[in-house]
Amino acid sequence: MNLDTLYSELTLKTTAKLVLVVLDGVGDIATREQGYLTPLEAAATPNMDALAKDSAQGRMIPAAPGITPGSGPGHLGLFGYDPLEFQVGRGVIEALGLGLELRAGDVAARANFCTLDTKGIVTDRRAGRIDTKVCEELCALLAQKVKKVGDAEVIIKAGKGHRFVVIFRGKGLEGPLTDADPHREGLPIPQAGPVDAKSAKAKKAAKLVAEFYKAALPIIAQKKPANGFLMRGIAHQPEIPLFKDRYGLRPSCIAVYPMYKGLAQLVGMAKLEGPQTISEQFERYLAEYDNFDYFFIHFKYTDMYGEDGNFAAKKQAIEEFDAALPILLRKRPDVLAITGDHSTPCAMKGHSWHPEPVMLLSDCSGSDKLERFTETGANSGSLGIFQAKYLIRLMQANAKMFDKFGA
Amino acid sequence: MNLDTLYSELTLKTTAKLVLVVLDGVGDIATREQGYLTPLEAAATPNMDALAKDSAQGRMIPAAPGITPGSGPGHLGLFGYDPLEFQVGRGVIEALGLGLELRAGDVAARANFCTLDTKGIVTDRRAGRIDTKVCEELCALLAQKVKKVGDAEVIIKAGKGHRFVVIFRGKGLEGPLTDADPHREGLPIPQAGPVDAKSAKAKKAAKLVAEFYKAALPIIAQKKPANGFLMRGIAHQPEIPLFKDRYGLRPSCIAVYPMYKGLAQLVGMAKLEGPQTISEQFERYLAEYDNFDYFFIHFKYTDMYGEDGNFAAKKQAIEEFDAALPILLRKRPDVLAITGDHSTPCAMKGHSWHPEPVMLLSDCSGSDKLERFTETGANSGSLGIFQAKYLIRLMQANAKMFDKFGA
Repeated sequence: MNLDTLYSELTLKTTAKLVLVVLDGVGDIATREQGYLTPLEAAATPNMDALAKDSAQGRMIPAAPGITPGSGPGHLGLFGYDPLEFQVGRGVIEALGLGLELRAGDVAARANFCTLDTKGIVTDRRAGRIDTKVCEELCALLAQKVKKVGDAEVIIKAGKGHRFVVIFRGKGLEGPLTDADPHREGLPIPQAGPVDAKSAKAKKAAKLVAEFYKAALPIIAQKKPANGFLMRGIAHQPEIPLFKDRYGLRPSCIAVYPMYKGLAQLVGMAKLEGPQTISEQFERYLAEYDNFDYFFIHFKYTDMYGEDGNFAAKKQAIEEFDAALPILLRKRPDVLAITGDHSTPCAMKGHSWHPEPVMLLSDCSGSDKLERFTETGANSGSLGIFQAKYLIRLMQANAKMFDKFGA
Repeated sequence: MNLDTLYSELTLKTTAKLVLVVLDGVGDIATREQGYLTPLEAAATPNMDALAKDSAQGRMIPAAPGITPGSGPGHLGLFGYDPLEFQVGRGVIEALGLGLELRAGDVAARANFCTLDTKGIVTDRRAGRIDTKVCEELCALLAQKVKKVGDAEVIIKAGKGHRFVVIFRGKGLEGPLTDADPHREGLPIPQAGPVDAKSAKAKKAAKLVAEFYKAALPIIAQKKPANGFLMRGIAHQPEIPLFKDRYGLRPSCIAVYPMYKGLAQLVGMAKLEGPQTISEQFERYLAEYDNFDYFFIHFKYTDMYGEDGNFAAKKQAIEEFDAALPILLRKRPDVLAITGDHSTPCAMKGHSWHPEPVMLLSDCSGSDKLERFTETGANSGSLGIFQAKYLIRLMQANAKMFDKFGA
């Protein structure tokens, strides 16, 4: 029997409130240079410490052993979707990251301006890294002149620097397509083609991309240095079972950055807009407590400072998070999970594969008798080291949402 | 998406050096009789202790929970091949153990001399455990008289005691075959037949085995007590993806015993011959450092003394290994893993299913703050308890050989 089917069959209706707090990239590694402490271990976290005593802990493998996930796979795992089964293309992630509202069937591409010589050879894949302002002007020009190709609507949105996103919204489209990008200078822009040659929908999408090039390139042909563009990660918004149907929970997202709102939207979470700080996010949770059963609350700064390699700032971000935590606890949810979507070790200045620590608290989580929430403590927790996609199932179990299996 | 495909797609070219050191059967169990210490815990290991502080640790399940592996599955797991998916027949393992160079398609059988009565009934399955010398004489006689059966070359090599190996080298052959062995006395030798009745290649192999019996039995009919022989584990060398293609690493093997060289050869590792001691093995690693990216270094004696149930000798073997370790560290690899291929508890005098401890060291392994490398310490390491086939993936991750998965 398929495990997801079993979970569905055993799911009961309850009134429980479940909260997933993601400290993005909070997991870290202990190194000699930092006195063998991680930021989480070095930080003063009296509020999380107080919860730790009554919590179960463990560590979670985001996607698979040794695999470093991006934010997409990292969050899909936390939402209970196997990141290997539910793959989301780069174009889709990029579009979500720019705050675009994708619809099922939309095909999205990461794009960036480049420089072409008179023969159409790519001489600079990043068009001298033009300013965001120039990129915005070029995108506005293209958006004004190319509103449609074939029977599909075209949506263009500028990103940072030379980057932008193109969405094709029409009937009968799908990805993935091969890149319209030679991936190095000295070659012309290749045509994007269907990865699966048998897909009529992908063929149609490839045709639209070709028509888009035909319409758009002449418009910027005289611009310098951005007289061309490349398109990569061309993919459609995948069909993902809705969170509310899969888990029987009304889900909501309280995030600040577009990428995480976009990922939540992919699985059908309501986006609760407005809050800009973690305190405001927790306040919003209090205000919306009765309206939803599941709250995904996203805290970005742990990841950001990990990427910078700034140990002190990552530690301080954890302390600021911890200081705000009592707001959330004014209405203590039935099940609270605090974790990351992946590790972002300061020493590596980037995401990593190291399992993220997780702390799970409910009136039946049991206590692992740990005094703090740390990577090293979590290693010996009762949850063990497990795949992140099971976290939601453990949260549901702690919410007493599962009937007994068998007699 | 298939996980191996994902790993392949994410693999980057690096210049990293990876070293896998296998202390064969090092894992053990703590018992009252030995003061609740394992040999690894009882041994003085200052050099491994020094590494432990900066390492990640965990324990590895060689094949599956409760499964005791032989050396074949044990090592295939360490090389990243699922031992349940890539099964290597006993005949092949035995042939490799005798140092025979198998080719793809060779069918190999474990054989042993037995005693038959006048009606062809097996009266002693081991022919009174004849001396190795007698076995060698009988094998030489058979090898001289039976060089071919059908269109296939026959290769015969004596092992220890009553044991030998037969290889059939011809076109269009495959295993596995059922055993030409009644598995108890009082019955005649059954005919070997194809396990898969639809395989024409296995039928041909079975026919060759029958012809071999027809040719060979008369030659030894008057010998006493070894006037017959049994054949088991009749299998062909399986097609295994080459290590270098699978991982993008140039692999080499520095082992002393033929079995381990044979297993390394199965996946296409270069065999660096010559060294007889662990010090010489480490010296060879230093000499070959620039020529390979991955080194498999095998130390036999921990297993041997475990099989003997000799706690003191196993402990001493660990200490001798540890004393030689500084030679290896003269050129510290980017990633070093020290582990076993399975446990061989002294109290059990044989291989076991107990997870083997593993210590993984790189500049991004992180520290589990463990002062030593021991079974009990490894239980609380950040690697958790995981399947051995993932070790190489973690080594690759630590070598920064994997690109990020998704955006």
